[in-house]
Amino acid sequence: MQNLLIIGAGRSATVLINYILDQARQYNFFVTIADADIALAQRKVSNNPNGRAIWLDASKPNDRRDIISRHDVVVSMLPPQMHLDLAQDCISLGKHMVTASYVSKQVFRLGDEARQRALVFMNELGLDPGIDHMSAMQRIDQIKAKGGKITAFYSYTGGLVAPESDTNPWHYKFSWNPRNVVLAGQGTAQFLENGKLKYIPYRRLFRQHRTIDIPGMGQWEVYANRDSLLYRDAYGLQGIKTLFRGTIRHKGFCDAWNALVRIGMTDATFPIIDSDKLTYHDLMDAFLGISEGTGSVKDRMAQLIDVEPDGEIIQKLSWLGLFSKRRIKIANATPALILENLLLEKWALKPAEKDMVIMQHVFEYEIKGKKHKLTSTLTMKGKDGSDTAMSRLVGLPLGIFVKLLLLGKISTTGVRIPTMPEVYEPVMQELEQHGVQFTDLEE
Amino acid sequence: MQNLLIIGAGRSATVLINYILDQARQYNFFVTIADADIALAQRKVSNNPNGRAIWLDASKPNDRRDIISRHDVVVSMLPPQMHLDLAQDCISLGKHMVTASYVSKQVFRLGDEARQRALVFMNELGLDPGIDHMSAMQRIDQIKAKGGKITAFYSYTGGLVAPESDTNPWHYKFSWNPRNVVLAGQGTAQFLENGKLKYIPYRRLFRQHRTIDIPGMGQWEVYANRDSLLYRDAYGLQGIKTLFRGTIRHKGFCDAWNALVRIGMTDATFPIIDSDKLTYHDLMDAFLGISEGTGSVKDRMAQLIDVEPDGEIIQKLSWLGLFSKRRIKIANATPALILENLLLEKWALKPAEKDMVIMQHVFEYEIKGKKHKLTSTLTMKGKDGSDTAMSRLVGLPLGIFVKLLLLGKISTTGVRIPTMPEVYEPVMQELEQHGVQFTDLEE
Repeated sequence: MQNLLIIGAGRSATVLINYILDQARQYNFFVTIADADIALAQRKVSNNPNGRAIWLDASKPNDRRDIISRHDVVVSMLPPQMHLDLAQDCISLGKHMVTASYVSKQVFRLGDEARQRALVFMNELGLDPGIDHMSAMQRIDQIKAKGGKITAFYSYTGGLVAPESDTNPWHYKFSWNPRNVVLAGQGTAQFLENGKLKYIPYRRLFRQHRTIDIPGMGQWEVYANRDSLLYRDAYGLQGIKTLFRGTIRHKGFCDAWNALVRIGMTDATFPIIDSDKLTYHDLMDAFLGISEGTGSVKDRMAQLIDVEPDGEIIQKLSWLGLFSKRRIKIANATPALILENLLLEKWALKPAEKDMVIMQHVFEYEIKGKKHKLTSTLTMKGKDGSDTAMSRLVGLPLGIFVKLLLLGKISTTGVRIPTMPEVYEPVMQELEQHGVQFTDLEE
Repeated sequence: MQNLLIIGAGRSATVLINYILDQARQYNFFVTIADADIALAQRKVSNNPNGRAIWLDASKPNDRRDIISRHDVVVSMLPPQMHLDLAQDCISLGKHMVTASYVSKQVFRLGDEARQRALVFMNELGLDPGIDHMSAMQRIDQIKAKGGKITAFYSYTGGLVAPESDTNPWHYKFSWNPRNVVLAGQGTAQFLENGKLKYIPYRRLFRQHRTIDIPGMGQWEVYANRDSLLYRDAYGLQGIKTLFRGTIRHKGFCDAWNALVRIGMTDATFPIIDSDKLTYHDLMDAFLGISEGTGSVKDRMAQLIDVEPDGEIIQKLSWLGLFSKRRIKIANATPALILENLLLEKWALKPAEKDMVIMQHVFEYEIKGKKHKLTSTLTMKGKDGSDTAMSRLVGLPLGIFVKLLLLGKISTTGVRIPTMPEVYEPVMQELEQHGVQFTDLEE
């Protein structure tokens, strides 16, 4: 019997836990769900005879190591900053580790040690990052196999609200970590365009958006997502001229979000003293310079950020309640935290509402001097506000990979992301059975 | 005999070391200068019989504590992030501690423990912070003593180049830590204006500058400096309507610096891969969006940041060499580090050149309904490129305070900044003998 440990039983772990508990009896897995909230872990295990819930405060090294030592594979659903400690435990205890998170530099440096111990630490195994890597690599390897040379690669993903549940002027609702949405892009973006490095500071990120066309779904906006260059080597695309990864949003979103950035509402560096004694209106006033003219706070703010006082952008800000005389609810909070709390209320996906994920890859390549273009698109809607497309697309790849690993079907070692055929082929194949189907268009 | 330990013998410690070694024989002090560079420490001690140099790697806790235990007072000239460790050592070993740095929250929390042990940890005892606190408090206490109620307080400081050594279009040269100049304002600024909180995000800091008049020196620009509100309680100014602290720069500086901010050159969050393979021209090109039109990189950059292509701001950027085809010298550097290295070359204060410090306080107050205004101004020039006004104005207050402390003249305990008469009176009085003379103008 293979023993699996899943650390963290929160909302983002539900699909993974359900999937692997479903498979556990058939394959003789035993699954331990560890969480600081034991009741939560127990609810997730339910009555499954191949599962058990245990209490774990993962910040306690001894407790953590004791539990890890009694398992074969560890899946971390903890916040990314915990992964280095866990990875070090897994190195010293000789355990495999799986996460959906970006590989940090510190975890990356453990690669040699993991390889020497024949361990695999598989990361970026969710949706984006995750399914994007696997679906892209499938096609990159196919294009290379027929002698193609890839000259440009664009990859876009968006966690969005389904059109039938789109009821607000921002055309956006949360299907994932709101904090990440508020802080998106604060770390700068770079990519390649026609052989040139392009570097977009945060302050210009949402201004420099592009438009893409999704077959049957119309036009969407895209802004640059993190460091696209990291994937030049990871995807085997040395020598490529254009390499761009982006995040998809509804048309009009980027300009309105840029207004929040310009105002300063996404600033997470500086708490505002006694922010709970202010109204949102006071806060907007506080952001106005002393020489920004007369008129209402709304008009002066429109002037400050160079938009029409009765235009679409100010309407979106008003709809959020930023000019209302309602009290801010949290004390000594940064603008970003104040915004996150406000958006949690305004952009909540209700129980009956559906989310939607869109992913699109565009490959430009040449075979014997002839130009080709392949566009590969996935769209998927959730069932309702809990069974979201997002949660399935993050949880299923993790679950499927963990199953393969427990069954001894993975020979890869080291600190990796899922770019190799032995991972992407079986994972993408099983995802298809769950309705994850890319539509490819060759031009 | 009183034993003083100065940790860190770098350039910023020279004036302090010379001052206290000068006083040492008269008052029977013994002064230990500890540095990881023992030769540097030895040069600073020279042949003074009341001083000695020792080797210390301050990051080694045992070595550090061993040395601290054998002294009465510790002055830290180490980088601010080291102060918490030192302060904890001083608490457990029962030693007083003195720094010129801002009080961090962590150090502030040691206040009760320091008080219980009858220890003083005096911080912010340089120029700004330091002389600004002392000279302001002197006047605040005087105004209060004659029954005045202070309604507005503005305080400005600038470390500048003297007019006779001002030879570049930016009208600025480094007299202090270049890193701090490049990163200035990245933590957001807040202040009070007519009873309202004003909060300026970094992206607007250099755009929202003010103009001030320095008697005999003409007009200068000021941008907001950090969190002015911190000093409302520290200065006993509860109920004040306007409280603004600012940094002084030459006219035209803020708009040009704002251009660097807008381009993204002050971004310290993201290293550029292989930056040493790029020219400055390539880097500017990388900052241009893909849809910023045609024309030269310089013209497109002017368009991106909304300035005239042949105007003053682009001329200043060109003078720095940002459009030159010269190679960047450092690898994998953030834009901020690349800028710092470039400025170190361009804004160096040469051996024969003079710096200048300007400090100005403006107090608006009422006595029996009648409005008053007090403007208090200090200007001081350095002797040459090493004996700078900046280094004197940072080092002398430290030295004078340490002397008072060693002589048993300080009764204050806890974690403090120099706002109390027993500190500011004797320190300001002795500073006058060193030419530090404020000119007060009553209106």
